[in-house]
Amino acid sequence: MARMVVVLNGPNLNMLGTRQPQIYGTTTLADIEARIRDRAGAHTIDITFFQSNHEGALIDRIQEVGPTADGVIINPGAFTHYSYAIRDALAMVPCPIIELHLSNIHARESFRHTSVIAPVASGQIVGMGWRGYLIALDYLAMLFDADAEGEPR
Amino acid sequence: MARMVVVLNGPNLNMLGTRQPQIYGTTTLADIEARIRDRAGAHTIDITFFQSNHEGALIDRIQEVGPTADGVIINPGAFTHYSYAIRDALAMVPCPIIELHLSNIHARESFRHTSVIAPVASGQIVGMGWRGYLIALDYLAMLFDADAEGEPR
Amino acid sequence: MARMVVVLNGPNLNMLGTRQPQIYGTTTLADIEARIRDRAGAHTIDITFFQSNHEGALIDRIQEVGPTADGVIINPGAFTHYSYAIRDALAMVPCPIIELHLSNIHARESFRHTSVIAPVASGQIVGMGWRGYLIALDYLAMLFDADAEGEPR
Amino acid sequence: MARMVVVLNGPNLNMLGTRQPQIYGTTTLADIEARIRDRAGAHTIDITFFQSNHEGALIDRIQEVGPTADGVIINPGAFTHYSYAIRDALAMVPCPIIELHLSNIHARESFRHTSVIAPVASGQIVGMGWRGYLIALDYLAMLFDADAEGEPR
Amino acid sequence: MARMVVVLNGPNLNMLGTRQPQIYGTTTLADIEARIRDRAGAHTIDITFFQSNHEGALIDRIQEVGPTADGVIINPGAFTHYSYAIRDALAMVPCPIIELHLSNIHARESFRHTSVIAPVASGQIVGMGWRGYLIALDYLAMLFDADAEGEPR
Amino acid sequence: MARMVVVLNGPNLNMLGTRQPQIYGTTTLADIEARIRDRAGAHTIDITFFQSNHEGALIDRIQEVGPTADGVIINPGAFTHYSYAIRDALAMVPCPIIELHLSNIHARESFRHTSVIAPVASGQIVGMGWRGYLIALDYLAMLFDADAEGEPR
Amino acid sequence: MARMVVVLNGPNLNMLGTRQPQIYGTTTLADIEARIRDRAGAHTIDITFFQSNHEGALIDRIQEVGPTADGVIINPGAFTHYSYAIRDALAMVPCPIIELHLSNIHARESFRHTSVIAPVASGQIVGMGWRGYLIALDYLAMLFDADAEGEPR
Amino acid sequence: MARMVVVLNGPNLNMLGTRQPQIYGTTTLADIEARIRDRAGAHTIDITFFQSNHEGALIDRIQEVGPTADGVIINPGAFTHYSYAIRDALAMVPCPIIELHLSNIHARESFRHTSVIAPVASGQIVGMGWRGYLIALDYLAMLFDADAEGEPR
Amino acid sequence: MARMVVVLNGPNLNMLGTRQPQIYGTTTLADIEARIRDRAGAHTIDITFFQSNHEGALIDRIQEVGPTADGVIINPGAFTHYSYAIRDALAMVPCPIIELHLSNIHARESFRHTSVIAPVASGQIVGMGWRGYLIALDYLAMLFDADAEGEPR
Amino acid sequence: MARMVVVLNGPNLNMLGTRQPQIYGTTTLADIEARIRDRAGAHTIDITFFQSNHEGALIDRIQEVGPTADGVIINPGAFTHYSYAIRDALAMVPCPIIELHLSNIHARESFRHTSVIAPVASGQIVGMGWRGYLIALDYLAMLFDADAEGEPR
Amino acid sequence: MARMVVVLNGPNLNMLGTRQPQIYGTTTLADIEARIRDRAGAHTIDITFFQSNHEGALIDRIQEVGPTADGVIINPGAFTHYSYAIRDALAMVPCPIIELHLSNIHARESFRHTSVIAPVASGQIVGMGWRGYLIALDYLAMLFDADAEGEPR
Amino acid sequence: MARMVVVLNGPNLNMLGTRQPQIYGTTTLADIEARIRDRAGAHTIDITFFQSNHEGALIDRIQEVGPTADGVIINPGAFTHYSYAIRDALAMVPCPIIELHLSNIHARESFRHTSVIAPVASGQIVGMGWRGYLIALDYLAMLFDADAEGEPR
Repeated sequence: MARMVVVLNGPNLNMLGTRQPQIYGTTTLADIEARIRDRAGAHTIDITFFQSNHEGALIDRIQEVGPTADGVIINPGAFTHYSYAIRDALAMVPCPIIELHLSNIHARESFRHTSVIAPVASGQIVGMGWRGYLIALDYLAMLFDADAEGEPR
Repeated sequence: MARMVVVLNGPNLNMLGTRQPQIYGTTTLADIEARIRDRAGAHTIDITFFQSNHEGALIDRIQEVGPTADGVIINPGAFTHYSYAIRDALAMVPCPIIELHLSNIHARESFRHTSVIAPVASGQIVGMGWRGYLIALDYLAMLFDADAEGEPR
Repeated sequence: MARMVVVLNGPNLNMLGTRQPQIYGTTTLADIEARIRDRAGAHTIDITFFQSNHEGALIDRIQEVGPTADGVIINPGAFTHYSYAIRDALAMVPCPIIELHLSNIHARESFRHTSVIAPVASGQIVGMGWRGYLIALDYLAMLFDADAEGEPR
Repeated sequence: MARMVVVLNGPNLNMLGTRQPQIYGTTTLADIEARIRDRAGAHTIDITFFQSNHEGALIDRIQEVGPTADGVIINPGAFTHYSYAIRDALAMVPCPIIELHLSNIHARESFRHTSVIAPVASGQIVGMGWRGYLIALDYLAMLFDADAEGEPR
Repeated sequence: MARMVVVLNGPNLNMLGTRQPQIYGTTTLADIEARIRDRAGAHTIDITFFQSNHEGALIDRIQEVGPTADGVIINPGAFTHYSYAIRDALAMVPCPIIELHLSNIHARESFRHTSVIAPVASGQIVGMGWRGYLIALDYLAMLFDADAEGEPR
Repeated sequence: MARMVVVLNGPNLNMLGTRQPQIYGTTTLADIEARIRDRAGAHTIDITFFQSNHEGALIDRIQEVGPTADGVIINPGAFTHYSYAIRDALAMVPCPIIELHLSNIHARESFRHTSVIAPVASGQIVGMGWRGYLIALDYLAMLFDADAEGEPR
Repeated sequence: MARMVVVLNGPNLNMLGTRQPQIYGTTTLADIEARIRDRAGAHTIDITFFQSNHEGALIDRIQEVGPTADGVIINPGAFTHYSYAIRDALAMVPCPIIELHLSNIHARESFRHTSVIAPVASGQIVGMGWRGYLIALDYLAMLFDADAEGEPR
Repeated sequence: MARMVVVLNGPNLNMLGTRQPQIYGTTTLADIEARIRDRAGAHTIDITFFQSNHEGALIDRIQEVGPTADGVIINPGAFTHYSYAIRDALAMVPCPIIELHLSNIHARESFRHTSVIAPVASGQIVGMGWRGYLIALDYLAMLFDADAEGEPR
Repeated sequence: MARMVVVLNGPNLNMLGTRQPQIYGTTTLADIEARIRDRAGAHTIDITFFQSNHEGALIDRIQEVGPTADGVIINPGAFTHYSYAIRDALAMVPCPIIELHLSNIHARESFRHTSVIAPVASGQIVGMGWRGYLIALDYLAMLFDADAEGEPR
Repeated sequence: MARMVVVLNGPNLNMLGTRQPQIYGTTTLADIEARIRDRAGAHTIDITFFQSNHEGALIDRIQEVGPTADGVIINPGAFTHYSYAIRDALAMVPCPIIELHLSNIHARESFRHTSVIAPVASGQIVGMGWRGYLIALDYLAMLFDADAEGEPR
Repeated sequence: MARMVVVLNGPNLNMLGTRQPQIYGTTTLADIEARIRDRAGAHTIDITFFQSNHEGALIDRIQEVGPTADGVIINPGAFTHYSYAIRDALAMVPCPIIELHLSNIHARESFRHTSVIAPVASGQIVGMGWRGYLIALDYLAMLFDADAEGEPR
Repeated sequence: MARMVVVLNGPNLNMLGTRQPQIYGTTTLADIEARIRDRAGAHTIDITFFQSNHEGALIDRIQEVGPTADGVIINPGAFTHYSYAIRDALAMVPCPIIELHLSNIHARESFRHTSVIAPVASGQIVGMGWRGYLIALDYLAMLFDADAEGEPR
């Protein structure tokens, strides 16, 4: 039975690659999602995407998918630093949660060094750009395979 | 003429009793709202419920109902700790505002000890579980009765 | 069998509504007690009142009613801030104790922000005027009903 | 019409001059009151005296005389340092209130340096012995004269 | 070719002048926008308005208009103090951004003294009421004139 | 001529052994007083007991018995920590004053570590339970014997 | 069977009453010991005395009598404040240990406010002069009687 | 042309699974390397492993492989916390560098909370056990594919 | 010619194994001394033991044996923490001085973490139980052998 | 069966006695090892030596001998103060580990007062020169003898 | 009538000049005492000497000579820094007490900077070697002469 | 007779000019060594070079050349900041030691501001690039000339 993984992206991540491509490149969030979808297909994982600039919309989605998801990959964007409401929503999700940041948040402004999300996440992938999503997926696929083969996670 | 009371619940309170009931119990927000509605009926109060995980939706609703509401009962959830925007919206509401917390927020993580809402609320009911909503309603009913009878509030 | 609730009021609360009515309104403590009595009647709760400007008299009464009371509602007035003797008396009372303040003590002078009573109370109702007594009574009535019906408190 | 002034003395002031006269002198509180009465007569002021060791009794009396008194002279004794309940009672008194201490409380033990009464008093007379009561009365008489002559206080 | 300026207003600014006019006056946001539109006409500037109580909706709009706007005037309301997500959205906008506050935020509650938006804005106009919007527009018009005449900004 | 000793007990000490005996034991204050009386009889000492929850009543009694008492044993209960009025009353008592605490107050809540009474007491007996009263009496008896035999105290 | 109590006195206590009697009185340590012995006789307690100005001699004696003593009364004199060696010796003694000071050490120089002995003592008697020894003995006698009668200590 | 990735492991990582397996499990570094090699084969990546307990040997290897490596995965072990020399060596390597920790270093002794390597790494993978190496490889493979297809990294 | 070593033990070490053996074990100081003596015999070393609870006696002995001793092994017990007099005595002893502690003093109460003796000792043996004395002796024996054979120490 | 003990020496200890003998003496590390070997022979202990100026080489050796050694004696030299990598290696060694310093590190530069090794060592021998190694060996021999004779360590 | 002066020397001062004369010189305590005796003869002062390493013995002697001595010169050695027991003994001596230190204790280790004896001494002579004893004697002689001539001291 | 100078370079200095020349320039360590060799020839100084990334190898070499070198020039690279082991090795070298850094380490990251080597070096040359090596050599040549001419260094 296929596992289900949810990929959540927070505010401004929809702008990836579509604005000022000479500066930020031309890889859009849609491109990234397509690549994740391909990789999910290779892993026979059902994949769901959601991006929003709205904190509440992210919480809605976490609540909807939380009970049935087998894995969550979330890039909370700037909400990383103050959304205790998203934290509360994630704290109710029983499956593994990977917190992901495209850039190295520890090498940027000091307000980005603190994550209010981290205490409720399972692990972090930092500074690997959009490919970080793919390897987060690979990691979850390995956990699912381990389950299927009765190996320890 | 029936008075109108608005019961607002913030992020993640829609999850009460529906997720992991073995942990959080089986009393849902719908159950609580039914009990409030019954009590409102007994008080001949029109009751309106609104729950949202969206800060903006809560503000919209506060603005919509603010001019005509006769009372507001609000459990701001995690927004309690950082939403100055909700605070500003409530500050414009002329009717009584009761801030309510199911549990004793002073006995939990330190980030939950501070309420940015309290300075603009009329009062607080803390640590009385779902019954807190009912007595908040009773309180408002008394204010309305006083008005009806020409007594001072 | 009727439950018994004790309503205790501390120093200066006897002045409510009787002095300078143009400033403080005309609702007297007797008025409030009458309203509480009515409501208690509706709940088939036996009600007892006691007000004193004397710390010792309050302690005497707490000791007398403590063993048989089913609920205590206490507005300690200024004793809130220094009477460790009242605290010690309340600590021996086994039933639920609701600490009540007419005004929002957190919005007044800084010496009023500290309650030496709170650590031995069950909960607090703040800033709802004399109606706070009624809803405290409603809350206790709900607890008694839950007991009567074998439901969890 | 004669004005009425109330002279209140707190705990242990009844002991003045009657115990260990070789140490504390032989001027009793009754002696002081006689001198005050004489001076009040000269000012055509009606004078009332009350002393108690009971915080609650002082509050009771303040409440009784507060509405009709034209002036209050109070030596709160040791209650000066912690009785927020007396403070609250005095805060409801509309006429001028003079806080009086026989000795210089600022030159004694450090716990005597703080008065919780002072914020609600009109003024303080400190360290002038029993003559302090007389000049407090003189001061009030001057206020009454100003009223009689239509001058601003 | 006419330049395009976007005027953004954050939470609760839609309430200007429409609620409790006896307190807040009767100048509505629509009134202000009319005045801005007049002045924009005088400058031959195309003007666009947007107000929302939703942090996410403001981000959505910033993303939409950002690539083509020649100037942004934004009053973030209470989001000023914690919305790193709006900050991130504005950071991607290449044209000049004027942060505007009707009142002097530095003279109000201490939580209003910090702006997380300021580091990505071009400048701030604070405490000049609705006229602040007009001079913000005047400033942008001067920049556009400089461009038109080949002068340095 | 028999000497007279006064045993004073402050707030809540009347509850010893009568409330929740399964927790606090069954030795009542009456039991303790009986034992003290027996021992006083053996010493031919007249014994007087007074317990009150009223600070003022304790002060009244201290003033009444102070001039004629030959010894005072006082357990001030919670007044230990804030009653400067009792302290002032005791400071006028010429006979020996023994401050007594049943338990080790230094091993309880931090607010109990400070005694405002100690500086005016002659000595302290701490942590010896009800037997502490008996040995305090023994101590005083010895002083009286010394006086009777013309020995220095 | 007679119980055995050891009375230990530290440095300079041998000087009691023998030097400058006009200042310190004429009651010598021998006098005190005689009185203790009499009282011990009345209690059928075997009593042992030891005084030394030598820290080591005190430790020797504690070690000798520790295993068989039923009670220890110790006035460590100035060793109270620094002798960790005496503390270590007392920590090995299983019976009750009463720490005794003739004067109120809390009313003297600040170095006398700290006792390194207190943490290993059972209780303290402070400020009762030589009679403190007698009542310490009375207290121990009561404990022994309780044992003999099978009552709880 | 096949790309070359170097997997570097620092001190004590050679002991994985071979010492005290009942405590640390039986997965050895060789097992992990075999799994990495398999995955590298699938990606047609040439893989090189190097483990050393020698800081200098790790630096030598970094210098040797640095100019030609297409990717570096390094778990610096305890050198993470003090080897500025390894940091300097890595700072000269032009290809992507992934810092990897098997466990969550932020949940162990405080000296392990600081990484002197992080500022010169491209990204971090933390707390995903041995699977972390595989997804690091997946990430690098994606970069190489991008290069091969002329896509931007 | 046989060398002479002095083994000094401070306060309470004479109690090892003889008091409360169920707690402290049954190895007595005499047992330890017998083992040391045996070992000394094997080394043809004259051994002298001295234990005292008297600081002065330890100083006397240090002075007596200091000029002729070839080695000193000292466990100062609680004197470790305050006896500057023992420190001064040891500072005049020309032969090697080994400071020994049976247990790890750094793992006990904080007052035991400081040694005023260490700066004048030659070395320390910590945490090796009674065997620490034997290896201290072995160490000294080696020094003596070196002397006997004309080798440098 | 012979026990095996490993003696490890860190950086610069190979220089003992070979450089500037007029200053540091002529006892070389080889001399010391010969003496240790002799002593080991007397104890029928198999002995292994290793010195290196290379941190990594010490770790390699600790890993090789750790599983089979019966005791480790290590003088980490300057690595004492910063090598968390050696600490990690030692933490995996199950047998007793004696940390040894030739000189009294507490009497030298302040950076030498801290040992990052100590928390994973069994005990310390400080300031006894090369003979410290021999007595460390004697101590281990005693432990082995105790094992052989079934005595407690 | 000849006056009597007592010269007391504390721990280790008996070692002056007799141990390691190449270091400490050859002036012994006996030499110093001879010089003091000569000078005392010139002043017709009877002189008594006492030295002990025992804190208790010094206290014993202070107690013996205290009542009859006309002057005390005491060098407490290391007891200076912690013997509150000697301090207490000296506090009972009515005649002038000169505290003397051979070296400048303020220029030595920090623990020597504090004297617990100083508060009960009449004066201090520090850092003048053995000659300090002679001038202490000269000072006392001057006081005695003043007495003899009826001049004020 | 020619003097001998040793030039030591620490980790990563072998990379100078050989990697990424477009960034770091093309002057290699070999180039620098050639220039040093030329200048040494002019001074008739024998020159030896050694570079290693191994802390241990540098210590090995310092130990080998230390006894015969007339001067040491060392650029410890990143070991500057933590290698107490290199410091210890250098501390045994009797000739002048010049610590050299190509860049101004005080103007770089804060961890580079501290040198643990400096206390055992004779002097430092910082921030003069490769020319710093030449002037270090010039300085040593001047010292050697002074020796040759019998002048003081």
